[in-house]
Amino acid sequence: MHKLVLVRHGESTWNLENRFTGWTDVDLTATGIEQAKNAGRLLKAEGYEFDLAYTSVLKRATRTLWHCLDEMDRTWLPVVHSWRLNERHYGSLQGLNKADMAKQFGEEQVLVWRRSYDTPPPALEATDPRCERSDLRYAKLQPDQVPLTECLKDTVARVMPFWNEAVAPAIRAGKNVVIAAHGNSIRALVKYLDDIADDAIVGVNIPNGIPLVYELDANLKPIRNYYLGDAEAAAKAAAAVASQGKA
Amino acid sequence: MHKLVLVRHGESTWNLENRFTGWTDVDLTATGIEQAKNAGRLLKAEGYEFDLAYTSVLKRATRTLWHCLDEMDRTWLPVVHSWRLNERHYGSLQGLNKADMAKQFGEEQVLVWRRSYDTPPPALEATDPRCERSDLRYAKLQPDQVPLTECLKDTVARVMPFWNEAVAPAIRAGKNVVIAAHGNSIRALVKYLDDIADDAIVGVNIPNGIPLVYELDANLKPIRNYYLGDAEAAAKAAAAVASQGKA
Repeated sequence: MHKLVLVRHGESTWNLENRFTGWTDVDLTATGIEQAKNAGRLLKAEGYEFDLAYTSVLKRATRTLWHCLDEMDRTWLPVVHSWRLNERHYGSLQGLNKADMAKQFGEEQVLVWRRSYDTPPPALEATDPRCERSDLRYAKLQPDQVPLTECLKDTVARVMPFWNEAVAPAIRAGKNVVIAAHGNSIRALVKYLDDIADDAIVGVNIPNGIPLVYELDANLKPIRNYYLGDAEAAAKAAAAVASQGKA
Repeated sequence: MHKLVLVRHGESTWNLENRFTGWTDVDLTATGIEQAKNAGRLLKAEGYEFDLAYTSVLKRATRTLWHCLDEMDRTWLPVVHSWRLNERHYGSLQGLNKADMAKQFGEEQVLVWRRSYDTPPPALEATDPRCERSDLRYAKLQPDQVPLTECLKDTVARVMPFWNEAVAPAIRAGKNVVIAAHGNSIRALVKYLDDIADDAIVGVNIPNGIPLVYELDANLKPIRNYYLGDAEAAAKAAAAVASQGKA
């Protein structure tokens, strides 16, 4: 039996300001740092040991991982960054307030942008200063690998090669893996692992900074999954994520 | 022309307490954190960009690197940890006060232990609770790869394979490299790069948290080297390192 741990980053400054974040590289809030440390403390208290950690190239996920590793006294563990674990790209909504958008376009439209499986938000222009194509961290990618917008289907499509080529082989080789990532890159993994239908994934919300454990069989099929720590707190935190798009 | 940057970790709690540290995994002090951040600010101000960072498996070096990368807004850079970049192992002196030892054994003896090229301090017993052989981070090493004491010659012997097999090939491949490590693992590299004689390396002291830049030719031979920032501050910091063994 393999164990895989997924941790969504702690609260970010734009989570707090209720803004669409996507690939914008905002940092954790003080609350987010505390959530990240708490995730590390939970993992330590439950005796989790890892051989390898994965995270995105966005600092809210990296810092969450660093705080986890620090609390576990495991700052020496190998960490692999991949842009494929980045948050879903939110297109031209990046930086805009979710509630403002709900007032302007209606809650239903915002829910479509936030949660539709295959309808992306309006795309960024490649010339928009918010476009990440000139960012050094993506310099080795083909320009069209750096999205201008994404629906969750697009996110799944770019997360899965990383799962198949990096994470799954590591787990099969017996490595204990933790992934610190984002609401939607984790939803992509959860959708795949639990074989959730396209129209059902909309109802799945990942709380910030609460380790989600998957017990996997030899074929990496889930036996069960659970959040570490207080189940009620995890449910409340997930519900809070779900309500962010209200006006 | 290649550039290589070496950064000794910021002040650690045991630097402050004037204790022999070696492989003991003590953390940075508040001053050490500030030194690490300052190193990052200097690198950023001078426009340094890296493709790859190396550090030891000890948290004072890792945390120094993390603060550097953070200040440079490069938290997404790949980081490779190696035990081969650890501080020199100080044997049974680990944890003991340098000035106390100077009073007990004389300054000359302490200078031999601190700076002799080929005389190691008295070894730890393998059964000593301070021995690192049961530490998870060294679990994949052969027991005799985890030293019970080291002279600088021993440190050079275990640093060089990492230079030859990992760092030098990366630099030759055109990668810009930063190494956050320790007084003696950096001295090992400096001794090799500058071809310093065994009896002359005793006089080389590496200050905490000041980036040391090597400009290397195509054969990785140094063209010149210099500390970033205030040269006088670097010289003073190096002199302070030299005087730590006085009674």
